[in-house]
Amino acid sequence: MQKFYVVGIGPGSFEQLTPQAMAALLAADVIAGYGAYIKLVQPLFPKKEYLQTGMTGEVKRCQLALEQAKAGRTVAMISSGDAGVYGMAGLVMQLAAEICPEVEVVAVPGITAASSGAALLGAPLMHDFAVVSLSDRLTPWEKIARRLQAAAAADFCLVLYNPRSHGRPDLLRQACEIISEAKQGEAAQVGQTPVGIVKNIGREGEQTIVTTLADLDYELVDMFSTVFIGNSQTFIQQTIGGPRIVTPRGYLPADRGEQA
Amino acid sequence: MQKFYVVGIGPGSFEQLTPQAMAALLAADVIAGYGAYIKLVQPLFPKKEYLQTGMTGEVKRCQLALEQAKAGRTVAMISSGDAGVYGMAGLVMQLAAEICPEVEVVAVPGITAASSGAALLGAPLMHDFAVVSLSDRLTPWEKIARRLQAAAAADFCLVLYNPRSHGRPDLLRQACEIISEAKQGEAAQVGQTPVGIVKNIGREGEQTIVTTLADLDYELVDMFSTVFIGNSQTFIQQTIGGPRIVTPRGYLPADRGEQA
Repeated sequence: MQKFYVVGIGPGSFEQLTPQAMAALLAADVIAGYGAYIKLVQPLFPKKEYLQTGMTGEVKRCQLALEQAKAGRTVAMISSGDAGVYGMAGLVMQLAAEICPEVEVVAVPGITAASSGAALLGAPLMHDFAVVSLSDRLTPWEKIARRLQAAAAADFCLVLYNPRSHGRPDLLRQACEIISEAKQGEAAQVGQTPVGIVKNIGREGEQTIVTTLADLDYELVDMFSTVFIGNSQTFIQQTIGGPRIVTPRGYLPADRGEQA
Repeated sequence: MQKFYVVGIGPGSFEQLTPQAMAALLAADVIAGYGAYIKLVQPLFPKKEYLQTGMTGEVKRCQLALEQAKAGRTVAMISSGDAGVYGMAGLVMQLAAEICPEVEVVAVPGITAASSGAALLGAPLMHDFAVVSLSDRLTPWEKIARRLQAAAAADFCLVLYNPRSHGRPDLLRQACEIISEAKQGEAAQVGQTPVGIVKNIGREGEQTIVTTLADLDYELVDMFSTVFIGNSQTFIQQTIGGPRIVTPRGYLPADRGEQA
């Protein structure tokens, strides 16, 4: 059966590209994707044919790639991180049903920013967590706000994707206000909730910032950042490798409020 | 600086072990972990020294491994999936602060079941999602129930880890009742919400089941399963590769309730 691969390439460095993703790229006649992602894989496969499109041309990009598949070519469409998390996997499957139902769409998972960013910060996601995109391009802000409120009130750890856009520089501040207010019932000192920012994961300019809800400097957060906000048990640990954010799972008596 | 690696090995097959994880295992003098995970990597590194412990001996297992690090050896402790998601990263960091603060603990991310399972099911996590463990060994059921209720009411997609245990076979049924009730406000036909079950991801016996909240057979779900529950927009698609679960992100006019 002919295949169309939707491939998550991880945060950007070859170090986090899985063998399965590598095999899909090798098998492809054409590698399609946003230009910035193509630049990340092109050095590995300099002789492949590439199909490059702009950032917001998602529908057109998928249609063009699927038409290549319809014509009998094996295509790998790449997303950074995991193609199944705010990537292209869903749209490709939706459009494939019309354009080339005879082609099997295969999703190849990648390391998403929740995982790669968490590892750089320490262990902020050891307990239940919610992943929310702050982008209101495709989702009404009211729905995003409701999700932030619900997740924070139920003491989830939070991971915020797309925390800033050109058009709406104030999204993260609004999100943090909603989260802080929702957390009032849960934690005595909401302002002390650990916050981690990870920028340019796996790429040039990789940077981590460990701070708190009260001290968070919104200006440090850009479009290439992922933001992590702890639950009521999350703490900041000073280590020889720098500050770390840790959310205990409850293995130690002290985590559960018991005497050690 | 001496390092202690906490390594996510992905769902189990070599195909999803990242080069970074491979490098950490190569660098290690000792590979520590639960026996079932050690069996997965031992064929790759037959001559390494292994430190194997039982499933519920998490604190002891970490202490023993950290004592090896204290004695100057490079240790890699493995978790299946991502060590930073219900894995050992947090506990290692907590205990390292006391046992060997001079050693840098490095988390190496892996493909967690949310990503690997979603890829097998199609694209169920294209929009905001919440990850919840149903295990009440370390977390009071009331807290788990509250999180399920909040996430479902706010129309998150849901991923349920540890959906079944020997002692509490009924956890998933209870969880689905809470979720169904919370969703009543959001969707007209809650029972039609797509549900995906993925078993033994990346291992022998890998299996996916696509069903709905109304038709879910709890007996099909075991300890090695991960369960995915859609949001109000999620649908089941019949494809040449089998049934798929897709959550639209909103790129297509039809996703947004507009005329195409």
